[in-house]
Amino acid sequence: MNVLPEIRRDPLSGRMVVVATERRKRPHQLVFRAVAQKTEQACPFCEGNEELTPPEKLAYRKNGIPNGEGWTVRVFDNKFPAFVQEEGESDLSGLFQHVPAKGFHEVVVFSTHHDKSLGQLPFDNLVLVLKAIQERLKTLCAEPEVKDVVAIVNHRPEAGASLPHPHAQIFATPIITPLVAHETSNLKSYKEETGRCLICDLAQEEAKKDKRVILHKNGFLSLSPYASRLPFETMIIPMAHSSNYEEIGEPEMNGLAEHISTILGLYINKLNDPPYNLVIHNKPCNIKGDYHWHVEIVPRITMLAGFEIASAMTINIVSPEFATKFLKS
Amino acid sequence: MNVLPEIRRDPLSGRMVVVATERRKRPHQLVFRAVAQKTEQACPFCEGNEELTPPEKLAYRKNGIPNGEGWTVRVFDNKFPAFVQEEGESDLSGLFQHVPAKGFHEVVVFSTHHDKSLGQLPFDNLVLVLKAIQERLKTLCAEPEVKDVVAIVNHRPEAGASLPHPHAQIFATPIITPLVAHETSNLKSYKEETGRCLICDLAQEEAKKDKRVILHKNGFLSLSPYASRLPFETMIIPMAHSSNYEEIGEPEMNGLAEHISTILGLYINKLNDPPYNLVIHNKPCNIKGDYHWHVEIVPRITMLAGFEIASAMTINIVSPEFATKFLKS
Repeated sequence: MNVLPEIRRDPLSGRMVVVATERRKRPHQLVFRAVAQKTEQACPFCEGNEELTPPEKLAYRKNGIPNGEGWTVRVFDNKFPAFVQEEGESDLSGLFQHVPAKGFHEVVVFSTHHDKSLGQLPFDNLVLVLKAIQERLKTLCAEPEVKDVVAIVNHRPEAGASLPHPHAQIFATPIITPLVAHETSNLKSYKEETGRCLICDLAQEEAKKDKRVILHKNGFLSLSPYASRLPFETMIIPMAHSSNYEEIGEPEMNGLAEHISTILGLYINKLNDPPYNLVIHNKPCNIKGDYHWHVEIVPRITMLAGFEIASAMTINIVSPEFATKFLKS
Repeated sequence: MNVLPEIRRDPLSGRMVVVATERRKRPHQLVFRAVAQKTEQACPFCEGNEELTPPEKLAYRKNGIPNGEGWTVRVFDNKFPAFVQEEGESDLSGLFQHVPAKGFHEVVVFSTHHDKSLGQLPFDNLVLVLKAIQERLKTLCAEPEVKDVVAIVNHRPEAGASLPHPHAQIFATPIITPLVAHETSNLKSYKEETGRCLICDLAQEEAKKDKRVILHKNGFLSLSPYASRLPFETMIIPMAHSSNYEEIGEPEMNGLAEHISTILGLYINKLNDPPYNLVIHNKPCNIKGDYHWHVEIVPRITMLAGFEIASAMTINIVSPEFATKFLKS
């Protein structure tokens, strides 16, 4: 039974959920801690196994032909997508509302190295990864039905990585995702009140205060956000106002790569290489209005537990000021 | 350095976070997967070790004296609280706003059995646990500065339990927690539009549809919510309208205990006893307005990963309709 994924709205909380049952075929277990699967199978993301993935949509190659060997970064559709091109039905009446989860869901393999995480990539390779993501975001955001593009990295199984070969995922969604919608709305109100960009002001005030700044160079600011959800969270902000990740050029790409590389290096050295989620927050697609793109990295050292599930607030046991000092020490 | 916990507001997303650095002394690690702590230490929640906990605030005893042996259920302050009575400073101006995390944070030990989880308790013991929670919620909600009470159970370390002896936690907070605030606001709008209670209507429509109903008896409905965040989520709703968990009597308590016991039994038998968070959602304290209390149980079989962190939406790989069939099969 091929059930199309849909976005459902919880009538009580207003919460949105993508119900995507086809993703269950991934190397995850339906039942908790059932017998672990054999992982002796060939890695579909390794060089030489290109036929195990859907056809590539983008690759940077040193040599070879599409879907063959010789690449450095490779992008293709997720085999178990949460967003698809086939379109199911909508229902926007009554208590049980849903729309089709129409969109795209892609995988960006960082390199041919099965064991090199984002923080361990050679600098040039990291820049290529950021460029591949940029190129795909530009293409996907141009699709008329796409309203938001979300690029993420899950590092380690404890942060949700289901395949060990390091990769990113890009989701192109038919609605503006709730968190980006909140941010967009707060940016708009702030602009109306002050005439300025909230994220520009935030970056400047943090740089001046210098209590939560981890790194400030090459046009970027890496900081421990004032209201970090979880210990050792980092936000990377371009200091010059920039709506869209798609519009940045070579120098900004290098500056961003240096910040990502430094922060992930600190996580590796100071925090014993914890699981983390890395997120690029970008301007929603095909709408007017302003934004200021940025990167968030959220280590997963403590759990999102009952209080978080109950309240939609988190408890953070490490103050951002302490986190900054600890990482820089 | 004793830093008081505070509730911070993220200027960009509006997100609230409790920064509570004193909780770091708990049996958690600051650094990911550092050498595991010896767990040979005496369990502070076992009978005979009462002097290892703060003084009890409530206990149901078969015999003995306060803070001695002979109890069945025992409640005391959390040793590493996220909410405290000492009051720090507020700042509600500018980008970096916070208020003191003034409130209460208590622990409810279910029984003297170190290994009996909520789903394995004898029925009478389970009812006593629910009564102890009720009694504490009533007392805490009467405190003038308390705006919300959140009672939760974290089952297993993968759901955030930091001590193995089964227990619940009660948080009494100085703000209405964001999720309950959303629910309250949606209930209010629905009431204004229809004259009816949203949760009453939801329960009746689900009971009639019978596609997501796991159990319907003794005045309660257990169902797989239409927009379940994660696989096999359950919501337990009292069918008769009831604002407050504090106001229910003996028959309702027994009905609720039967539903909790049945659902957790199904999780144990059908899902291999997964980690879960159980939550009682209750009417905010000291305010006018209506609510309809209910219980949510969220198994933690799949991860909250990068997409969830990026978007504040979840991807659920098991449809609630399939989950219902699977649990009842």
